[in-house]
Amino acid sequence: MKFCSVNGIETNTIAINDRALAYGDGTFTTAKVVNGLVIFLSEHVKRLMQTCQTLDIKPPSEQDLVRQIKVAAQGNELAVLKVIITAGQGGRGYSRKGLSNNATSVIISISAFPLHYKKQAVEGITLGNSQQLLSVSPMLAGLKHLNRLEQVLIKTELEQRCEDELVIANYLGQVIEASSSNIFYFFADKLYTPDLSLSGVDGIMRQLILFHNPQITIYPTSFSDLSKANSIFICNSLMGIIPVKAYNERLLDLTPVFAIKAKMKGLF
Amino acid sequence: MKFCSVNGIETNTIAINDRALAYGDGTFTTAKVVNGLVIFLSEHVKRLMQTCQTLDIKPPSEQDLVRQIKVAAQGNELAVLKVIITAGQGGRGYSRKGLSNNATSVIISISAFPLHYKKQAVEGITLGNSQQLLSVSPMLAGLKHLNRLEQVLIKTELEQRCEDELVIANYLGQVIEASSSNIFYFFADKLYTPDLSLSGVDGIMRQLILFHNPQITIYPTSFSDLSKANSIFICNSLMGIIPVKAYNERLLDLTPVFAIKAKMKGLF
Repeated sequence: MKFCSVNGIETNTIAINDRALAYGDGTFTTAKVVNGLVIFLSEHVKRLMQTCQTLDIKPPSEQDLVRQIKVAAQGNELAVLKVIITAGQGGRGYSRKGLSNNATSVIISISAFPLHYKKQAVEGITLGNSQQLLSVSPMLAGLKHLNRLEQVLIKTELEQRCEDELVIANYLGQVIEASSSNIFYFFADKLYTPDLSLSGVDGIMRQLILFHNPQITIYPTSFSDLSKANSIFICNSLMGIIPVKAYNERLLDLTPVFAIKAKMKGLF
Repeated sequence: MKFCSVNGIETNTIAINDRALAYGDGTFTTAKVVNGLVIFLSEHVKRLMQTCQTLDIKPPSEQDLVRQIKVAAQGNELAVLKVIITAGQGGRGYSRKGLSNNATSVIISISAFPLHYKKQAVEGITLGNSQQLLSVSPMLAGLKHLNRLEQVLIKTELEQRCEDELVIANYLGQVIEASSSNIFYFFADKLYTPDLSLSGVDGIMRQLILFHNPQITIYPTSFSDLSKANSIFICNSLMGIIPVKAYNERLLDLTPVFAIKAKMKGLF
């Protein structure tokens, strides 16, 4: 971590009674910084504010949030910016009653940008099926909240596997996402992405791809569906669009992915 | 919070890159302290160590953990002791690779004991059904991990309801638990508790009651089953056993609960 601030003040510690620590009571987003500018800043801020509302967390001032983000990003040629908004400090057990001040905590950090995405974006990655199953979570599905223990365990599994990435289904057998990215696939020249009504994170990049390509079908996907795909890609705000060159050792066509990438290129 | 320590050192802050903050990457337990002694200390420590193992978190030295807990508890006539064990500081995103030191964080805190349990234990509480549904979570069910956003949202719902407590089912309609306690119920003189294979926390008090009452049936319970119960109680390590006097406004028999309570009394 190259820089970190809490509520606009540079620091490397946080109050021990912050509700993120004990309960994961908050939301976050991760954005790419290029030449001091945050890519898709308004989309990231909008999602943070909306998730606060959904989780019944008092949002920070949007103007102040944007100002803090811009201060953190400036001067960074290429970096990862992470914003965490927590429900604040204190409360009594799970209850948010009696928060020790009237404000959420806004934690902003800057880290080094992962170098392997550049190569993967050209050459593609190998993808396998995770042996674990995500939760079916009607209360939290779609949200980028701080309860991320499942993703930690999936990343641990990935580190013991030979593939570059894993795709994970939920308890109902619905394909949801990769370890930290969304997934799209082509079948018979049509483009699909899994339905996230019950599990997963609806990423900023997924939202943008869907917005600019209204022909894409959001579809409750099984591993069997995915095994019939002729092309697959994964995406998030940091990696952009990365093609899958082999899924469960079956080689895939990269051309349709480069075509959609070329179409989206104007955006980032 | 009257006292807090991290790895044995008294403090009110923690490193901003602790994995509990960003991912809820850890486990916790909450115990009752009476006259400086931690009730069911060995059970709490055993569960913490086991959950570390399940979550692939390097456990602290058990001897050192017990010593830290005893130091924190001493001198407290009646208090709540909470122990959080996190995966440590650092890592790269969801990955635990590259933790900045070789140790987990052990966070121990002492807080005031809730006063309302004493009255509730004698008079009983009213119980209703939550309108929310817990996740079905094969990876995390039963564990007392730090991903507790659902419990925060359920507590928020409870604060807007007229009942003292809520019972929550999961997405599959299986009754799981109350907002921060386990649940048992009598039907035709037999005692049951919900199956927690897919959701919920297997509490220390639940484990002890099951251990000392092998006649209890662990049963996949529906709201319909619960509506036919003639007696219900909830339990956790702080409240002990608390009878439900009315479930969805239907009055219940408290006598069987006081009988099981009398039987368990030798333990606490």
